[in-house]
Amino acid sequence: MTSALTERARELDVLHAATDFRGRFRLPAGVIYLDGNSLGALPQGVAEAVADVVHRQWGNDLIASWNDAGWWQAPARVGDAIGALIGAAPGQVVCTDSTSVNLYKAVVAAARMRPGRRVVLTDPDSFPTDLYVTDAAARDAGLVVERVSPADAVARIAQVGDDLVLASYSSVDYRTGELWDLAEITRAAHEVGALACWDLCHSAGVLDVGLDEHGADLAVGCGYKYLNGGPGAPAFIYVAHRHQDDFDQPLSGWNGHATPFAMAPHFVPAPGITRARVGTPPLMGMLALEAALKAYDGVDPAAARERSLSLTGFFLECLDVLVPELDVATPREDARRGSQVSVRHPQAYAVVQALIARGVVGDFRESDIVRLGFAPLYLTHGDVLAAAEHLRAVIEGRAFEREQFTTRATVT
Amino acid sequence: MTSALTERARELDVLHAATDFRGRFRLPAGVIYLDGNSLGALPQGVAEAVADVVHRQWGNDLIASWNDAGWWQAPARVGDAIGALIGAAPGQVVCTDSTSVNLYKAVVAAARMRPGRRVVLTDPDSFPTDLYVTDAAARDAGLVVERVSPADAVARIAQVGDDLVLASYSSVDYRTGELWDLAEITRAAHEVGALACWDLCHSAGVLDVGLDEHGADLAVGCGYKYLNGGPGAPAFIYVAHRHQDDFDQPLSGWNGHATPFAMAPHFVPAPGITRARVGTPPLMGMLALEAALKAYDGVDPAAARERSLSLTGFFLECLDVLVPELDVATPREDARRGSQVSVRHPQAYAVVQALIARGVVGDFRESDIVRLGFAPLYLTHGDVLAAAEHLRAVIEGRAFEREQFTTRATVT
Repeated sequence: MTSALTERARELDVLHAATDFRGRFRLPAGVIYLDGNSLGALPQGVAEAVADVVHRQWGNDLIASWNDAGWWQAPARVGDAIGALIGAAPGQVVCTDSTSVNLYKAVVAAARMRPGRRVVLTDPDSFPTDLYVTDAAARDAGLVVERVSPADAVARIAQVGDDLVLASYSSVDYRTGELWDLAEITRAAHEVGALACWDLCHSAGVLDVGLDEHGADLAVGCGYKYLNGGPGAPAFIYVAHRHQDDFDQPLSGWNGHATPFAMAPHFVPAPGITRARVGTPPLMGMLALEAALKAYDGVDPAAARERSLSLTGFFLECLDVLVPELDVATPREDARRGSQVSVRHPQAYAVVQALIARGVVGDFRESDIVRLGFAPLYLTHGDVLAAAEHLRAVIEGRAFEREQFTTRATVT
Repeated sequence: MTSALTERARELDVLHAATDFRGRFRLPAGVIYLDGNSLGALPQGVAEAVADVVHRQWGNDLIASWNDAGWWQAPARVGDAIGALIGAAPGQVVCTDSTSVNLYKAVVAAARMRPGRRVVLTDPDSFPTDLYVTDAAARDAGLVVERVSPADAVARIAQVGDDLVLASYSSVDYRTGELWDLAEITRAAHEVGALACWDLCHSAGVLDVGLDEHGADLAVGCGYKYLNGGPGAPAFIYVAHRHQDDFDQPLSGWNGHATPFAMAPHFVPAPGITRARVGTPPLMGMLALEAALKAYDGVDPAAARERSLSLTGFFLECLDVLVPELDVATPREDARRGSQVSVRHPQAYAVVQALIARGVVGDFRESDIVRLGFAPLYLTHGDVLAAAEHLRAVIEGRAFEREQFTTRATVT
């Protein structure tokens, strides 16, 4: 059975050889890294780019780099590079702040774009910061938040009708990896005259998101997961061209001003996506992210998606053969699956620790999820099979019962 | 005359030898850097620290670094290190977001701490982002902003009385370098039951700010000026211990939650200053800032202030001798002077460019200000004299009239 899987892994790796970009990353030896949906691996060239920022741009050229090294334009430049991976034409994405801060801007701005309406829909199973920030923005903007599963969103949107401001959803569930229908929910929101905002944290870089194609209004996401921008890399925000003139966000800092160096006494928002900027951008992380995005040079989002589906599909195939009793939380249909496979286990935390001890790095999510992310650029079908074999060994050998894996760390 | 100044520069450098920390910085050869109030110079050890973050912490150890490298605790750790420079006992400062975002939090939170009151005072000559963000926060929180010079603040505070929410001022005027009386304005605000918030962008690292000593309530500031954290280094926010339980800020992201990894459905603010955190911190820039702050190891804020006053005082002395006709915008009294000397000139932009061409890097600020910042750690009295001589040469030689200096760049 395993030899058949070995053969199949080999065949799939040959079939997908054109999208094997492992050579563009520096991964530690002996590790199968299935946590690129928490912190992406280090791409080649980033260390050199960061050293150049520190030594030459900062240390030697000092403030002249605002012009000479293009620092001032970095948020727009990096935004456009991210835009290319999420189906956004240039001028609609800017790299700035954190996902949380950007979502706050989006929700408050949406309320101002739909005055008189009161309801925001969001997913009760969203990543918590989305829930907290949506609640906070709604409180500040006088809205009511209804937590409705994306599975029921289309029906509920129709019921709420012209009281709906915004349907705000994650494209992929961070725990189960379920992929929601961005096009369908967006269309439903538009039918009642509302807006749709998408959190792309678990989508950018691995899905053919198609924001423009599907008429999305607003989107946010982070730079440190599949985009590989490094720890705490700055986030991004997308505002569709047609909404930019009306995008009135609450954090009106000087970087979003029409004439920032005129030191004008009153705020006049810049034309275009620039108005979503706030303060001085975190350049060290942003320029690291810019260098990291080169790992995607020449990679079409559709090709990344195809490889991702092949990897996760093959992992499910391996699990069916090797550990068929496992409770898989991720949908098996391609159209409903992001770039991860999560399994439920009563001792999920210990299972994750035992896997890490064997060199397979995934993560644990409350309360019973073993979450394994498949970054398409640097994983092979051979890695996928090896990970499944380690998972079987951990489960069958009951490695998770060993003492050292039973204490929960505060973070992973 | 000049030889007397040369002798005096030498004497002063001997007198202040104990606070000469130029060896802790990597400055380009041939440059007298008077723009540390825009972007601080590169301290020794930062490049190595950043390389370690990239190669080992990120590239090799990957997500394990959240625990093993102390990433999660970085905002508190760096916050406390900054706190030591601004007179804040541990647990009151956190490193997070940008100054603009932090000021938004502070103003909205202040409104919630003083319900029923309506007025915020701020300086019409504040750095524009402070004006824009204060206006935006006031709009969102239902407040009215009155722009009143800090020179008139104490009187106006008494008039506004129990309708005052907040006196929000910069400790140092970013253009003229005038230092305002933090203790006095804070006291006046407290007398009417209001709060005081201080922008320390031009103070942290060069003044003996004494937040705790003077009873300040809130403060914000950036990491990339005199703290030398590098381009776009993350900012900080101070909330005095006594206010932390009531500090209800609008950007309630998961990093500010009491139990961030429990993935709880509703926001419960963390105890202490942690509630001022929002999203995943920009670690690359934050860890660079942490390394940069080592340049202040063993340097008491009072000692930095003493050296700063000596440098700026000597610069004024040099100007009086060498270019007595210059219009100095910065107060001559020590108690009213920050760490910069600004001069007004009808062709200020061209003067700055001509100085830069001679290796003296300062900056231009609308409309007629030549702004020269004196970072005490890496400048000597010899540098100060040389800068004054270059300024005389530029002014007397009318170097600023040369064609190449008459076009304004978009950024400096």
